[in-house]
Amino acid sequence: MARVLLTGASGFVGREVATQLVAAGHEVHALGRRAPTVSGVVHHAVDLLAGAPELRQVGATHLIHAAWYAEPGKFWNAPENCDWVAASLRLARTFADAGGHRMVVAGSCAEYGWDRPVFSEETLGPPPQTLYGQAKRSLFELMTAAAPLLGLSLAWGRIFIPYGAHEDARRLLGTLIAARAEGRPAEFSTGEQIRDFIHVADVGAALVRLIESGVAGPVNIGSGVGTSVQAFVEEAATIAGYAHRIKLGARPMRADDPASLVADVTRLTDLIGFRPRHTLSSGLAEALGHDG
Amino acid sequence: MARVLLTGASGFVGREVATQLVAAGHEVHALGRRAPTVSGVVHHAVDLLAGAPELRQVGATHLIHAAWYAEPGKFWNAPENCDWVAASLRLARTFADAGGHRMVVAGSCAEYGWDRPVFSEETLGPPPQTLYGQAKRSLFELMTAAAPLLGLSLAWGRIFIPYGAHEDARRLLGTLIAARAEGRPAEFSTGEQIRDFIHVADVGAALVRLIESGVAGPVNIGSGVGTSVQAFVEEAATIAGYAHRIKLGARPMRADDPASLVADVTRLTDLIGFRPRHTLSSGLAEALGHDG
Repeated sequence: MARVLLTGASGFVGREVATQLVAAGHEVHALGRRAPTVSGVVHHAVDLLAGAPELRQVGATHLIHAAWYAEPGKFWNAPENCDWVAASLRLARTFADAGGHRMVVAGSCAEYGWDRPVFSEETLGPPPQTLYGQAKRSLFELMTAAAPLLGLSLAWGRIFIPYGAHEDARRLLGTLIAARAEGRPAEFSTGEQIRDFIHVADVGAALVRLIESGVAGPVNIGSGVGTSVQAFVEEAATIAGYAHRIKLGARPMRADDPASLVADVTRLTDLIGFRPRHTLSSGLAEALGHDG
Repeated sequence: MARVLLTGASGFVGREVATQLVAAGHEVHALGRRAPTVSGVVHHAVDLLAGAPELRQVGATHLIHAAWYAEPGKFWNAPENCDWVAASLRLARTFADAGGHRMVVAGSCAEYGWDRPVFSEETLGPPPQTLYGQAKRSLFELMTAAAPLLGLSLAWGRIFIPYGAHEDARRLLGTLIAARAEGRPAEFSTGEQIRDFIHVADVGAALVRLIESGVAGPVNIGSGVGTSVQAFVEEAATIAGYAHRIKLGARPMRADDPASLVADVTRLTDLIGFRPRHTLSSGLAEALGHDG
């Protein structure tokens, strides 16, 4: 059991991290403006963008940094990504200064240059397509160089495509859930894109396992399985009993949408022995059951 | 003539920038803790690490960012490099937000992976050897992606090896100047390393020309000429009348010291038409005359 600081605890991924940290018996201190909904977590109301000197008093040894600017539809190229790089650097410095020694950051598959169908951690490739991806990549590269000088053991989880019950209505599964709730058609692109979908509870579990391990460096967090958006939507709609109301092809493909984003999960499997609890079917059933 | 914000105006490079901005007729506003020694500059006493909202009132259109943690002997791998990345991002955001549109940052040859003798801007190469280099590189890559979204025109001067009268006694020429002032021997390594030395007044002039231009992207700031440290020291000692008191080989070579750091100055020459005013001889004479 460890005393763990957690940022982003009220967010889509962070709430799963909080839940599973508590379940694993850790003492969890959430830093952020909003109080987390997960019970058993100590909340410290701070604006991370303004610095968080309060964390010095907590005396935490571990830090999972899952907070970021994440407004759906806007975050990809928002200037706020720069603010979060700055805030993350200050957070890491303060944490190390206060005696912390183990840190995990929620990174993203957007750090990769999307020039391949399957991504292993060793090669970041050409520059990321988005400012969000570049911000996370720049932070990764800088913190990788800084960590030993700060006395920090650092691991970096590159999260692929999480889905879950509580996702925003502008996301993929969220579109279906919201449409069903309002009784209107759910519209999607044609959906040829291949993605590595992973249930957000599995993402949370992987981040918790990662911080408990001593593994350093980047670790992809995905299922290792590529599924087309079409197949994902059709399976979700069938489980939701809403297959008659989905419209694939009703929305345009984004010109910059990569054809394939699939994780090489060798490091996730071999180094921390993690395997997702959910298949796509069981994960979708869980996610849709919450609203079904 | 422009209204120009300048950070680091009391530093080794910054004071030259301030001098030449004033000489070129610009209205210069220095942001920093210490008042610059250059006359004709408006000083705003701020701690850039704590943010500088004051800059909003200045209404500057241009910004030259030359401030950084630069303690000789320490800055290469100091955690403070992370703080300066964070401060630089906040500075850029605030400047853009306040209506600024043209920005030049003082970068470094340390951004390159030192795997070649001569460096052109297109290829950064393997990761930098130092945290300082990684910090400047990460900031460069992030700001390059962010600039268009912030409405900023951004140029980035990668400064090679500046020398001048006012350099710190722990630097190369500074060692000679200090030894001469105290009448003791001046000790150096054997000095086989090839470096691109450039008089700091030429660095200042290049940065001023760069911000006046519309050129975007990285531009090496060097002489384009490789000189061995031995040749530099011997020429400087001869000019200083101190050749009998230098000891080459009295200090060990640093194991991680690269064999050659020379700028490809094609972009500096072709894009902004800049040529250094000083040769090595005239530059050393100027630098040593100040204390001679």
